[in-house]
Amino acid sequence: MHILLTGAAGYLASWLVPEVLRAPAFADARLTLVDLAVPHAPSDPRVRIVTGDLGSQAVREAAIDGGVDVAFHLAGILGGAAEKDPALARRVNLDATLSLWDELRSASGRPRPPRVVFASSIAVFGPPLANPTDDATPTFPALIYGAQKRQAEIALKQHSARGWLDGIALRVPAIVARDGADARQRSAFLNRLFFAHARGVDLDLPVSHDGTTWLLSARRAAEIFVRSALLAPGSLGRQRAVLMPAQRVRIDALVAALAARHPSSSTRIGYAPDADIEAQFARYPELRTPLADALGFTHDGDLDTLIDNALARPDG
Amino acid sequence: MHILLTGAAGYLASWLVPEVLRAPAFADARLTLVDLAVPHAPSDPRVRIVTGDLGSQAVREAAIDGGVDVAFHLAGILGGAAEKDPALARRVNLDATLSLWDELRSASGRPRPPRVVFASSIAVFGPPLANPTDDATPTFPALIYGAQKRQAEIALKQHSARGWLDGIALRVPAIVARDGADARQRSAFLNRLFFAHARGVDLDLPVSHDGTTWLLSARRAAEIFVRSALLAPGSLGRQRAVLMPAQRVRIDALVAALAARHPSSSTRIGYAPDADIEAQFARYPELRTPLADALGFTHDGDLDTLIDNALARPDG
Repeated sequence: MHILLTGAAGYLASWLVPEVLRAPAFADARLTLVDLAVPHAPSDPRVRIVTGDLGSQAVREAAIDGGVDVAFHLAGILGGAAEKDPALARRVNLDATLSLWDELRSASGRPRPPRVVFASSIAVFGPPLANPTDDATPTFPALIYGAQKRQAEIALKQHSARGWLDGIALRVPAIVARDGADARQRSAFLNRLFFAHARGVDLDLPVSHDGTTWLLSARRAAEIFVRSALLAPGSLGRQRAVLMPAQRVRIDALVAALAARHPSSSTRIGYAPDADIEAQFARYPELRTPLADALGFTHDGDLDTLIDNALARPDG
Repeated sequence: MHILLTGAAGYLASWLVPEVLRAPAFADARLTLVDLAVPHAPSDPRVRIVTGDLGSQAVREAAIDGGVDVAFHLAGILGGAAEKDPALARRVNLDATLSLWDELRSASGRPRPPRVVFASSIAVFGPPLANPTDDATPTFPALIYGAQKRQAEIALKQHSARGWLDGIALRVPAIVARDGADARQRSAFLNRLFFAHARGVDLDLPVSHDGTTWLLSARRAAEIFVRSALLAPGSLGRQRAVLMPAQRVRIDALVAALAARHPSSSTRIGYAPDADIEAQFARYPELRTPLADALGFTHDGDLDTLIDNALARPDG
């Protein structure tokens, strides 16, 4: 069995790679990791590294290496970066992704079409987000990134309907908590909040105390990605885009729960709302995930478990 | 004013080009026609021809020629041809189209963003088609062509939301009636039916007598394309994909209405249903077009007027 994982240097991958290597069903699989660089690859004889730009056909061919049974496609130019360089975003998020679908199909030579687990995004929906939002909510991507994720979903759905691939596009919410998240990223405040007390760093949140967001720990997200890879053939119907489960959390509730873990902390968490950031990251309506529910995918459960999982370390 | 029209050698263009040249609002506009070849271009001093492949940036630059106020984008690799050559279809229907959106934006230099009238297709919906089908029906393109139209719609919607373009994607139904339609095309039977009596050609229709389809004459379609180009800025909201109005016609009713025009004809029209063709072209449910209705777009009206329009000739 050959498993391909793109975007291997990213935060979600730091959880997903060990989760894959740990999965009993993948015990005998070889795992190919692809990214521009993969600085923290695990030392495991099953792991092979391919470094390079997925926009290059040669890199994709080296990655696919004759055929793939499971592909985790996480590589992408994310929100703010895509807005700054739409041409690069198109090259990676759309062109390379569609070519990867085509080449995975052609290179299959396997009894079953490759299972593709694609990291899509809730950015397909907005902002603003419809209330409530569920799997069937019409998509109105505001960001270039979200539109490209939606375009890739359409191709994945079609390839799956034809039996060329067996795809699932997981619409990923905010995944927490990345320690050392780049403060210049507009969404960094969410990650930084989780570590503010431990690091003793005061923080002004660019959202209101009564803002709401959808959160999922990277640990739980990685579990859902692996479970998606292991779904039996035929588990997925015509609809291949699945909203990931997430907790809808009030910002002040999260602030309070984090403070309660550091009773002697003198770190100050304030609010300095920015209208754009509030609209993009803290006006999240009710969330319903019937497709994920039917597949048995669940979020972290409650706020304390979310925080436990968000503060944990991969392999920890 | 500069108007661009791609796919200028196609059937719809044979109606749309004279309709554009006739429109009082465009009396002083220059019109650039683009296609691989434009054999029947009108001799009008306002018309400029650019021949070449829209997949080439140089061809697109020559076509845009510094800036465009209105772009009719009809060029595309259609259903069966796209299935036979998906790589070509992707190059034209997706890559060239997205590049055209980007370049129209960049080249604007006008006080208003270019109005783009894009020939999308009801192929975004299926088959099978939901009953009823309306503008808000979720899209499940079965054909490669339909998926690529949907992907292009998403980009057009986003570019419009940002004010980069002012786009409308018209979801085109079966446009009738092309004399001499290529009999190898799966949908040719609809066009050939219109001319069977006049040509004295017996015809076995690959659909059932009680099949249903959505029809719009090329004459009326061309009028709607021009009206779309002339909509005042701000006429279109967030939703930029508009289902064109069409008559839902029973096949036997169409057969009878055509026969009634040729009372002395001995031409025989029979039925030899093919399940695939029936599913793709003759199982059309109820159609609702609230967006088109609100814009004042209407179909041919009744079956006799549809036939009159379908049998007419451009400039006739």
